[in-house]
Amino acid sequence: MKEKVGFIGLGIMGQGMAHNILKAGFPLTVWNRTAARMAPLVGAGAAAARSPADCAAQTTIIITCVSDTPDVKQVILGENGVIYAAAPGSLVIDMSTISPQVTQQVAAALAAKGVQMLDAPISGGSEGAAKGTLSIMVGGEASQVERARPVLQAMGQKITHVGGAGAGQMVKLVNQIVVVGTMLAVAEGLLFAQAGELDLDKTIEAIAGGAAGSWMLSNRGTQAIADDWRPGFTIDLQQKDLKLVLEAAASLGIPLLGTSLIHNLYRTLQARGLGQEGNHALLKALEYLAGRRGGD
Amino acid sequence: MKEKVGFIGLGIMGQGMAHNILKAGFPLTVWNRTAARMAPLVGAGAAAARSPADCAAQTTIIITCVSDTPDVKQVILGENGVIYAAAPGSLVIDMSTISPQVTQQVAAALAAKGVQMLDAPISGGSEGAAKGTLSIMVGGEASQVERARPVLQAMGQKITHVGGAGAGQMVKLVNQIVVVGTMLAVAEGLLFAQAGELDLDKTIEAIAGGAAGSWMLSNRGTQAIADDWRPGFTIDLQQKDLKLVLEAAASLGIPLLGTSLIHNLYRTLQARGLGQEGNHALLKALEYLAGRRGGD
Repeated sequence: MKEKVGFIGLGIMGQGMAHNILKAGFPLTVWNRTAARMAPLVGAGAAAARSPADCAAQTTIIITCVSDTPDVKQVILGENGVIYAAAPGSLVIDMSTISPQVTQQVAAALAAKGVQMLDAPISGGSEGAAKGTLSIMVGGEASQVERARPVLQAMGQKITHVGGAGAGQMVKLVNQIVVVGTMLAVAEGLLFAQAGELDLDKTIEAIAGGAAGSWMLSNRGTQAIADDWRPGFTIDLQQKDLKLVLEAAASLGIPLLGTSLIHNLYRTLQARGLGQEGNHALLKALEYLAGRRGGD
Repeated sequence: MKEKVGFIGLGIMGQGMAHNILKAGFPLTVWNRTAARMAPLVGAGAAAARSPADCAAQTTIIITCVSDTPDVKQVILGENGVIYAAAPGSLVIDMSTISPQVTQQVAAALAAKGVQMLDAPISGGSEGAAKGTLSIMVGGEASQVERARPVLQAMGQKITHVGGAGAGQMVKLVNQIVVVGTMLAVAEGLLFAQAGELDLDKTIEAIAGGAAGSWMLSNRGTQAIADDWRPGFTIDLQQKDLKLVLEAAASLGIPLLGTSLIHNLYRTLQARGLGQEGNHALLKALEYLAGRRGGD
């Protein structure tokens, strides 16, 4: 039996992902808080639901891809939420990046109704969402991961089952720690190179192939030295994720000296009104700090 | 005219590099402070010099590859140093990692005798030195870089002319900033993953292909989670290079918050007698800090 898929949350990521599910041939029902965003999907053959519950009532796999922890609670457990209409045996896949602890609470609430859940946060940006090349980190039961795989494969290239409920969210947070830490490494290197009046293109060229090499250096480092601050991932979203990281670290009882520092450095950019620039603007924070960049 | 090559400093890097110069067919004269280290090269066809000056007297390109700034000053400007016997028109290539400022002073002293100099520090470790696959970052005059290229190509795969005198050293320091910063990013991610009881292999597998990906994650991260602390590059050598970084940053007047933190974290490992472990043992420093690792 082919699964009927529901998709809740048609933001910058969800739009591309939902289109790719349609392209893969799954019957699709969509819901979005701002109803106008459903039009392109309906135009491409999807049905529009009247609420998250309505979306769940018509489908067997319900995907949520919304902004933050309260949004996931709202669309799943809130008024007209998924939980009030999802049939026993159906599967909820949350692809938002949210609190691992809340993920486990939501999964437990759904389980009490006989509804399965996977947490399956993504990385790869809006470009990856559009192209179907996302990395998807999946937490939950192995049998449900296999059930979900054909749908996940419509959206992503690399699908890794990393553990039980909440583990997908935890691995996503690890991903964010490593991303921003690598960006700080690149930014400090570039600040030093600038101050030393080095040729920045040649500097990156000379070091990118060796032990200093990273995706952030080759992609965001080159963008930063071209003074191009357009977001692959905005500072505001990065901060939302770092808040989740630091809350989880506090509850695990571990210090994260570098990540805390970076969270504060990004705050200095938000204070300057630059929250919609890309996360590689961390270099700008260092330049302001060093007195090497005037006010924007 | 084929250049006659001199090689001063047959340590863990210099051994492999000098052998590769011989293999490429250059006449080679070697000198090393500990004379016994010259034997394998002499066995392979090199001549042994009696001093750095003697080495310079017999050659047209004199390579130095020693430990630290004072060692370079000693073999080039000190008693029986290269400067006292190098013929006008000959070329000194310093492949050590040392102070960019001292590099410029040494280059000026040599220039006053009509001797050219390039700074050409390397990355790629002892394995790269043995295999001839080093990355070489070269500072100095373009015509001398072209002159040196056949000899450099015997030792390295990627040779980048990055700027004038001292620029090679500066780019090498950028490399070190980015290397240790990326390692801190990886270490914080892994500490968080450990504390969250994630499967560490699966965690790295899930994130290494995306924006979190780096050479340090794929190589040193995997080594760290296998509890394998053998050095690709030792903490003691890393600290020597970070000292150069922080001195240069101070003279340039820029703060390096991340790099300073890392220098201090490595110091906690040196204080525990772990200076000969690899630089990826930064993870251990975080584990000690978090109370997650007992005394070694």
